[in-house]
Amino acid sequence: MAAFLVNGWPAHAVDAGDRGLMYGDGVFRTMRVRAGRPCNWACHLRLLHEDCRRLGLEEPPGEVLLAEIARLAPGEAVAKVIVTRGASGRGYGIPEGATPTRIVAAYPPAPDDPRAREEGVRVRRCELALGIQPRLAGVKSLNRLESVLARAEWTDPQVREGLLLDAGGRLVEGTMSNVFLVADGRVVTPALTRCGVRGSQRVRVLALARSAGLACEERDVAPDELERAQEVFLANSLIGIWPVADLDGHRWAPGPVTGRLQALVESDDAREG
Amino acid sequence: MAAFLVNGWPAHAVDAGDRGLMYGDGVFRTMRVRAGRPCNWACHLRLLHEDCRRLGLEEPPGEVLLAEIARLAPGEAVAKVIVTRGASGRGYGIPEGATPTRIVAAYPPAPDDPRAREEGVRVRRCELALGIQPRLAGVKSLNRLESVLARAEWTDPQVREGLLLDAGGRLVEGTMSNVFLVADGRVVTPALTRCGVRGSQRVRVLALARSAGLACEERDVAPDELERAQEVFLANSLIGIWPVADLDGHRWAPGPVTGRLQALVESDDAREG
Repeated sequence: MAAFLVNGWPAHAVDAGDRGLMYGDGVFRTMRVRAGRPCNWACHLRLLHEDCRRLGLEEPPGEVLLAEIARLAPGEAVAKVIVTRGASGRGYGIPEGATPTRIVAAYPPAPDDPRAREEGVRVRRCELALGIQPRLAGVKSLNRLESVLARAEWTDPQVREGLLLDAGGRLVEGTMSNVFLVADGRVVTPALTRCGVRGSQRVRVLALARSAGLACEERDVAPDELERAQEVFLANSLIGIWPVADLDGHRWAPGPVTGRLQALVESDDAREG
Repeated sequence: MAAFLVNGWPAHAVDAGDRGLMYGDGVFRTMRVRAGRPCNWACHLRLLHEDCRRLGLEEPPGEVLLAEIARLAPGEAVAKVIVTRGASGRGYGIPEGATPTRIVAAYPPAPDDPRAREEGVRVRRCELALGIQPRLAGVKSLNRLESVLARAEWTDPQVREGLLLDAGGRLVEGTMSNVFLVADGRVVTPALTRCGVRGSQRVRVLALARSAGLACEERDVAPDELERAQEVFLANSLIGIWPVADLDGHRWAPGPVTGRLQALVESDDAREG
């Protein structure tokens, strides 16, 4: 089902002593691949490198990753790049000269879902509240148990995403996406200074919105702002942008700002390709 | 350096798609092995099983783990038991029928350190504040980046442990140990209801102290209680009990309650052996 390159070598396994497994001591990015090339690559690479620096991990060169992705996924695929601190003995202390492990994984392409994109999706609010940890805020680290537990809160396949608040009651993100709302013509997304994952699509949507002249705000968002918003949407690298049509019974029709941003993301992908 | 059994088979690698690596979706326990048998085993197994239930993981049978530990580490060793949710495709959602991965690792025995045990150790207070996440509080999960980052705050080998507060400013634990203080004849250790790892040695020390007639309290602890305490000590399964001799310049001589608990733990190990 998936194919892997581990430090450039075809493999389906990693060292059992890898600190990625032992401690979640690593970072990752997931991306859509078209004709062997990841969409939004410059942004993925920049964020991967920033996350590596946040954890003090050596940054894998972009050209190496690009070549490995093309080798593993020459056509349409989903690729995942993982960088861990590598194998070590016991103990949290980082051994001198630890060599990072670089994993590139290729999965089948995500199924296209035009209905979700056009009509919007149903989402719920999760009960789990994200812990506040500024040292890891924004980092797409391998410590993802909160996301796993939040995603396990529902089984209804009609519910496509769950929204998460932090321990202080502020809106943060979805379990697998970033969340945006449109209020008084402004595009608003929660600041990720206390927790949350900074997705590449979030960064791209903000950049595209700003260059299209839309006012954007990254700031604390109270959950009741959602219901007052004119539009709510979700973004990640695989789904693109999904309008939220229903949040626990509160309904929206897909709105014009969401539609405009969807078109901008699509033409950005087309320009790259 | 280390030897592994993965689902009972000698191996030095795990599936690259294992959710333990992808998300830290699993739990572990580390223990001292003497003559092929883990010290304090009943407690390790009980806590491992409780942690599995907290994450909805199938519990590996104790007799299987015991046999695998004895096979891998017939003499003196450090053993680590890891249970992950197993390999899956992409996505946080837990696939139906996911089969847990059971990893038993054996490492060389931890070096004996009679000086630390008798004279006490130097510790520091860490800057990182643990995030508050009641859903994972107490669980020894594979999401250990906070411990890694905290341990990376110092390099001085004379400093043997770092103490951590939570985001609310309460004392919680050490990076690799639980912390206790003795105040007015009572043995006090932070409640682990918001964050922190419930070590097997912590559970044993509390049980031994109680059965020796010492009053024990698991409760919120303000950091300034440390300096007012008559004794402070650290406990984990490998170090046993270390008195704290110096916390950022505040000094204690090893005290009588610490010494008594050290003797109780040693005789408990001897009784088992």
